[in-house]
Amino acid sequence: MTELVVEGAVEARANVNIALIKYWGKAPGELPEDKNLPAVPSLSLTLDGLYTVTRVAFDPDAEVDRVFLNGVELDPGGTARARVILDRVRALADVAAPFRVDSVNHVPTAAGLASSASSMAALAAAAARCAGLDLAPDALSELARLGSGSASRSVFGGWVAWEGRSARPVAPVEHWDLAVVIAVVGTGPKAIGSRAAMERTTRTSPLYAGWVGQAAETFREALDALTARDFPSLVAAMERSTMRMHASALGADPPVLYWQPATLAVLREVERIRADGLPCGFTMDAGPNVKVFCAGADVEAVSRRLTPIPGVAHTFVARPGQGVIVRLVTQERP
Amino acid sequence: MTELVVEGAVEARANVNIALIKYWGKAPGELPEDKNLPAVPSLSLTLDGLYTVTRVAFDPDAEVDRVFLNGVELDPGGTARARVILDRVRALADVAAPFRVDSVNHVPTAAGLASSASSMAALAAAAARCAGLDLAPDALSELARLGSGSASRSVFGGWVAWEGRSARPVAPVEHWDLAVVIAVVGTGPKAIGSRAAMERTTRTSPLYAGWVGQAAETFREALDALTARDFPSLVAAMERSTMRMHASALGADPPVLYWQPATLAVLREVERIRADGLPCGFTMDAGPNVKVFCAGADVEAVSRRLTPIPGVAHTFVARPGQGVIVRLVTQERP
Repeated sequence: MTELVVEGAVEARANVNIALIKYWGKAPGELPEDKNLPAVPSLSLTLDGLYTVTRVAFDPDAEVDRVFLNGVELDPGGTARARVILDRVRALADVAAPFRVDSVNHVPTAAGLASSASSMAALAAAAARCAGLDLAPDALSELARLGSGSASRSVFGGWVAWEGRSARPVAPVEHWDLAVVIAVVGTGPKAIGSRAAMERTTRTSPLYAGWVGQAAETFREALDALTARDFPSLVAAMERSTMRMHASALGADPPVLYWQPATLAVLREVERIRADGLPCGFTMDAGPNVKVFCAGADVEAVSRRLTPIPGVAHTFVARPGQGVIVRLVTQERP
Repeated sequence: MTELVVEGAVEARANVNIALIKYWGKAPGELPEDKNLPAVPSLSLTLDGLYTVTRVAFDPDAEVDRVFLNGVELDPGGTARARVILDRVRALADVAAPFRVDSVNHVPTAAGLASSASSMAALAAAAARCAGLDLAPDALSELARLGSGSASRSVFGGWVAWEGRSARPVAPVEHWDLAVVIAVVGTGPKAIGSRAAMERTTRTSPLYAGWVGQAAETFREALDALTARDFPSLVAAMERSTMRMHASALGADPPVLYWQPATLAVLREVERIRADGLPCGFTMDAGPNVKVFCAGADVEAVSRRLTPIPGVAHTFVARPGQGVIVRLVTQERP
């Protein structure tokens, strides 16, 4: 099944995911296909309804790849990540033609989540199929990883582990009815981007080696807790991973500090909610927002506690979601 | 000069100090005189007007040491630190009699600073002199260290370095006209004490080794900046040391997080003050308060920026101060 789709287009839809055990730091690798190899294993939950739809077609008349995001064409600087995937697809399929990529993000800014994982996973799936590649799931995950490390996880639904070259599903959506309440914190001063912060941490933080050294054990604890549906143990591992990731960045020169006052206010409120008998736990990525895990039935109760906190712009609820979906588009593009 | 002062009393007065390069973690040591040996070198400024006055006399009629703090006698649990110093003094002076200790703290709660450094430095100086010991400054610093690590620095005035068994003065009060604006943050949930947090960090944080490994270099940078009166370099080293200390604690299991929302608000305001052209820099100890260093002439301007921050109860200004002072008290105690 290596049929080349030249006449039509392929559309893929992928959800974002949220890491409980964090990806922070890259392993060394010199080849193009070694891009974004992780220094540490990570564990994530793919989220429902926060997705990117990407349509890919060959564009034989073009001289270079053209990428449109939400209808606006990106300049070459904005297409660098996409081109890594497209170049790899051309190499694997032994074709040379440029692609036209039309991508629409359905990850509202209000969700407080980055869309690089969903967009690169959707792009990888659509481009591979467009070029006639019938990639196994792990190969598709590896391809998505080249565009954005966390995209390797968005290929799969539910609970996903990522170690080494590709991610793998470890439990389906139905395994555990948990949900995430995202406390979106009004942005303060512009923070450093996650790639630059990761690079600075790796290069200058004397705490980074300790972060890498502990990762396998924390990952294993979280996997065991997930298998056993042991929420307190899952939360303990998640918060430990989160704090150690942020701590390794705090140790950089100059320090990388993503938190705002409201970030701390949410963390303290999570402690109080838990003390009040409502199980929940937090994680944070390279930004000031706080993501709070709880039972699916508890999202309203948790949201009611987090929404009134000064500095929290609003909260947003996300639930477990499926992996990437691909379909052929037979009709002509308008 | 080993005259034993049995009839009279000795009074010592010592100031608190604030560490720019942080003490966090103890070196191994099994002997009583190895207590509070530091895992890392630290650098501090002794502060004026925030002090403890401690009067020590032999009490031949008593069976055990009696310690009064602000007029109230402490129970045995409260005198443990003092007894380490008193036992050491008795051993050095080859005497057996119990002491009576009367200590008065003049470190207002409003200053947001712990008084263990000033109280243990004053106790060491008064008890040693009372027992007829004529200790050299480094030996007195070593004695004070047994009660509280940071007390080793309060023996000296101005800028003080502490490595190994004792601290040493590195620049006098007059060397540099800097001051500290302390932003006192309304306390939130009761935090873990610094000794327990230090112990937990040492035992469970995989980031602790990195903290220890970087300490000598950061200390050296700060010393060089102090010598050259290079404020930006001093601040860079101070903030790096501060963040790495807190990061090593964040890496503990469970994580140790001392910050409150207002702590972050002050850190962000310090960034803005600096961006506005007013040089300043922060440090934090095992608690939510933020200490902001600036030129002595700038304390009003800095205070005006920090005082209105929501969650900051008030600010407090401290300036460089002298080391411990000892005097004989000839009159009878009432």
